[in-house]
Amino acid sequence: MTYAAETLEGWYCLNVFYKIDWKGWKTLSPNEREESLEEIFALWRKWADIEAKSEGSHALFQIIGHKADLMFMFLRPNMHELIQIEMAFNKTKFAEYTIPSTSYISIVELSNYLPKGEDPYSRPEIRSRLYPNVPDADYLCFYPMNKLREGEDNWYMLPPDERNQMMRSHSLIGRKYAGKVKQIILGSVGFDDFEWGVALFANNPVHFKKLIYEMRFDEVSARFGEFGSFFIGKNLSKEGFNHLLQL
Amino acid sequence: MTYAAETLEGWYCLNVFYKIDWKGWKTLSPNEREESLEEIFALWRKWADIEAKSEGSHALFQIIGHKADLMFMFLRPNMHELIQIEMAFNKTKFAEYTIPSTSYISIVELSNYLPKGEDPYSRPEIRSRLYPNVPDADYLCFYPMNKLREGEDNWYMLPPDERNQMMRSHSLIGRKYAGKVKQIILGSVGFDDFEWGVALFANNPVHFKKLIYEMRFDEVSARFGEFGSFFIGKNLSKEGFNHLLQL
Amino acid sequence: MTYAAETLEGWYCLNVFYKIDWKGWKTLSPNEREESLEEIFALWRKWADIEAKSEGSHALFQIIGHKADLMFMFLRPNMHELIQIEMAFNKTKFAEYTIPSTSYISIVELSNYLPKGEDPYSRPEIRSRLYPNVPDADYLCFYPMNKLREGEDNWYMLPPDERNQMMRSHSLIGRKYAGKVKQIILGSVGFDDFEWGVALFANNPVHFKKLIYEMRFDEVSARFGEFGSFFIGKNLSKEGFNHLLQL
Amino acid sequence: MTYAAETLEGWYCLNVFYKIDWKGWKTLSPNEREESLEEIFALWRKWADIEAKSEGSHALFQIIGHKADLMFMFLRPNMHELIQIEMAFNKTKFAEYTIPSTSYISIVELSNYLPKGEDPYSRPEIRSRLYPNVPDADYLCFYPMNKLREGEDNWYMLPPDERNQMMRSHSLIGRKYAGKVKQIILGSVGFDDFEWGVALFANNPVHFKKLIYEMRFDEVSARFGEFGSFFIGKNLSKEGFNHLLQL
Amino acid sequence: MTYAAETLEGWYCLNVFYKIDWKGWKTLSPNEREESLEEIFALWRKWADIEAKSEGSHALFQIIGHKADLMFMFLRPNMHELIQIEMAFNKTKFAEYTIPSTSYISIVELSNYLPKGEDPYSRPEIRSRLYPNVPDADYLCFYPMNKLREGEDNWYMLPPDERNQMMRSHSLIGRKYAGKVKQIILGSVGFDDFEWGVALFANNPVHFKKLIYEMRFDEVSARFGEFGSFFIGKNLSKEGFNHLLQL
Repeated sequence: MTYAAETLEGWYCLNVFYKIDWKGWKTLSPNEREESLEEIFALWRKWADIEAKSEGSHALFQIIGHKADLMFMFLRPNMHELIQIEMAFNKTKFAEYTIPSTSYISIVELSNYLPKGEDPYSRPEIRSRLYPNVPDADYLCFYPMNKLREGEDNWYMLPPDERNQMMRSHSLIGRKYAGKVKQIILGSVGFDDFEWGVALFANNPVHFKKLIYEMRFDEVSARFGEFGSFFIGKNLSKEGFNHLLQL
Repeated sequence: MTYAAETLEGWYCLNVFYKIDWKGWKTLSPNEREESLEEIFALWRKWADIEAKSEGSHALFQIIGHKADLMFMFLRPNMHELIQIEMAFNKTKFAEYTIPSTSYISIVELSNYLPKGEDPYSRPEIRSRLYPNVPDADYLCFYPMNKLREGEDNWYMLPPDERNQMMRSHSLIGRKYAGKVKQIILGSVGFDDFEWGVALFANNPVHFKKLIYEMRFDEVSARFGEFGSFFIGKNLSKEGFNHLLQL
Repeated sequence: MTYAAETLEGWYCLNVFYKIDWKGWKTLSPNEREESLEEIFALWRKWADIEAKSEGSHALFQIIGHKADLMFMFLRPNMHELIQIEMAFNKTKFAEYTIPSTSYISIVELSNYLPKGEDPYSRPEIRSRLYPNVPDADYLCFYPMNKLREGEDNWYMLPPDERNQMMRSHSLIGRKYAGKVKQIILGSVGFDDFEWGVALFANNPVHFKKLIYEMRFDEVSARFGEFGSFFIGKNLSKEGFNHLLQL
Repeated sequence: MTYAAETLEGWYCLNVFYKIDWKGWKTLSPNEREESLEEIFALWRKWADIEAKSEGSHALFQIIGHKADLMFMFLRPNMHELIQIEMAFNKTKFAEYTIPSTSYISIVELSNYLPKGEDPYSRPEIRSRLYPNVPDADYLCFYPMNKLREGEDNWYMLPPDERNQMMRSHSLIGRKYAGKVKQIILGSVGFDDFEWGVALFANNPVHFKKLIYEMRFDEVSARFGEFGSFFIGKNLSKEGFNHLLQL
Repeated sequence: MTYAAETLEGWYCLNVFYKIDWKGWKTLSPNEREESLEEIFALWRKWADIEAKSEGSHALFQIIGHKADLMFMFLRPNMHELIQIEMAFNKTKFAEYTIPSTSYISIVELSNYLPKGEDPYSRPEIRSRLYPNVPDADYLCFYPMNKLREGEDNWYMLPPDERNQMMRSHSLIGRKYAGKVKQIILGSVGFDDFEWGVALFANNPVHFKKLIYEMRFDEVSARFGEFGSFFIGKNLSKEGFNHLLQL
């Protein structure tokens, strides 16, 4: 008998961050720059086709600060496609003028709270959360996190009931932000250096701060939340991306 | 019911640090250097226009030591403008001769200590602190910080009364430095890797040391303060910046 | 008298990770690229000869994310051969277009659970585990780990019986994934910065997550597991490698 | 009422570490190298003039190991002068062949052990310690340190009497090395990433080891000392520096 | 009265690690490469003369993995000579094709277990251990370490008798490997970032693993051992070094 929480897994997810080498980019002629961008747009059209067929989703964000300039987020039914996408991008001309700064490998994850006997993967309201489109919002906040395992504050040594009760109370805070903040929870145990990635989406970035700060006083975060780096950025449409790369 | 401290938020803030590539800068002709600086001054005039209209504020500091040479601090009503400012700077000719070394993303934050029923955002003395100009002082000290969550020393698990009482006692130390040190508290939960950024301003940098050292013996810092890197620098006027970049 | 667990050691192991310098690679002519790859394939044929003679094993994986693009895994009867392999690769033309990003030095390790008096190294079912071929599977998950030595959670201060009992319960979880996940346990005390490397192999990468997550709730991992970086990748045949390097 | 220890502050201090780019340095012609060194010697003469007027002090050390090759130590009455010195050096031709590897910003600090009522800044024996020349000795040992704030071992939560008594016992160890080791204690709270920098000077470097090792068994270090990187180097006269840079 | 363990100090030691820039090395003509190596061999002959006169010792190792390719180990009667050796190497043509990756500064250290009244430095069996030649063995294992100072596990707060008894039991494990593993204990308090460096030498590297793993269950390591990075390599004769650098 095991005490592990049961989870449902959906699409695999790749978040990949790049810095732009502006000095190099400027050495290209206008024609070369245009061709480079067109090569990216050709990839983008393929991604859009896949999203149109509900076989994946994607988005691009302009990250603020020195950690990165761009973050692509890709959702796909298997890891092989994510490896292919990364490789295809890294072989482009445009990629020569970017520096990969970090990345995150994960899979959409839901905690299984359903009664026994039902197949959750067959229920539409579950499927839409396991295989989601990247929400349509102006801002993204991304961070990886662990549940602490340190002395008295060891999440994984708690009785399941205690863990469940704390998670319920934790999720009540999240519900207060319904309509303001959407989230995708990404499981990454065995895939990357933290146990989860959290991707939040909102039109007003102050809601990220309000939500996460309020949660920090909740026992789940206060005692057991261990956080990595935070990234914040603005959604870039194809037009926005094209505009960004103009000199 | 939540125990989270209530906060007020003002302007968004970007602190961005650069090292100067002197070797590269010297390869430019005097004309090219002058044009590069003029491009920066053109941006600077736009920033000054915005400050004149009370729609933001900015300052530049010459940072001492190997961590950075320059730090720009920008305050704006929304994050989008900060992203635009960073992008516009990074596209300049001068930026080709700088290396971004670190940055900090945050928002001006005040703790809400007002009686219920009033709208704090409507009170002028609050507004001037939420939407401040960068103080006019010779020196800046900037550092990020967390409130500790470790074993018995977990700030976020304390009863609100205990937290409030400690913060009051803590602020009494700050008041002893009134007239010597000005501060802007920057909330960054969900925006950057620490929970707060602190920007202090003084004409005599020894006051930074005196103030922070005295506070370190206070329980809020002694038990709960977790500090990142400290940056210290001197205010650079446009003339000072121009002088710095002459060879 | 010592309390150290007894272990059996098999082949030495080198995991070595590289990033591809696509920009440099593109500067080569098609002929130069083909010659570069042929040089690698010549090495590969030598490695295959050794594997055919059961004197070692090897595999190549395409790693997802920014940490690496390629990981070679080599198993050999002595460390000298691993040093020679690394040197031979690093001297190739192709290596000029890669950047070593990390590596791991270890030796295949089994815990000795046999009755006294028998020579475990003479038993075929033990030998096949000490001198294994890299399992034939689509995906690899690699991570280094320690057993914690911190305050009350000090693995090495536990009575041997308690350690053994916990390890038995831990291995029961592993057995639930028989047929789905294969593993090679690599001892690295005195060889590298962690005490063990773990290499898992599966056709469906979600099984890595399921297995490691379930184990995390087990006391051995929950209280005593200290984990380094996780790497995940897809097996690359010679054809796959050749295809990857085409432009 | 505050429990903070009272301190006296003297000259500001900049320790700045550089690695030499020998490969680049060799590309210069003998004339260019000579001119580059002469530019440094011109700065050095200014520094010597200031030291002759007791308005500051300086020294250069050749650091052993990969962390740095050179360390300049500058003492000045205000931080502005230190910023100017760093900038002037970084603009030199020689600086193009160095890489800044680290630095430390601080201020000479004495604990105030005088009876109330006296102005310590007026006493000559205090002044000579607040405004010291860099001691004339063959070897330097530099390291930054904190006083720990962790669980039961929180220096800043101790009663002042306990802190004072421990510091007295600690200083008795230091006195045993009088005549062998000289020290400058540098306060850096609010200036750099640790709370103090310690600069030790001796003709025989084994005394650094003996002194620091003996102190490590003293409660102040054993329970409360948190140490950063250690740097050790040999004093370089102008002649020694010139000799070092010859090819 | 102090509780510090008494130690004897012998020769100073420099371990310095380099990566080889193969791409650069290949740009040299065969003649240039031969001249570069001859320059190194000329230094090597000087080192051999010093070793022949028992005024120092040295060895070179080929390190496996990405952390380094080469490690020189030098023993000398004073630190000045080590600084000179490092500088002489860094000025060579060959050094232009290496990148220093790390280093370690220390001094041969013995614990003083002799009866009072005798001068240990006059006893031949002590002298041979304080001023040792690098042992003649195929493999080296090098790692830095601290004795922990954390909460209840604070080595430096233990009563001397308890420390001594633990060290005696610890050394019994070492003796079981006599004839298999030789060691040089290097004290580095005040010299480098850890308190000790440990250099082990063996013809079969599995003995490093066996010895260190067995020790890890001993209280000295289990509760008090804090380890840095581990490096493992194979002894390189002049001929081996010459062979390594051939293309």
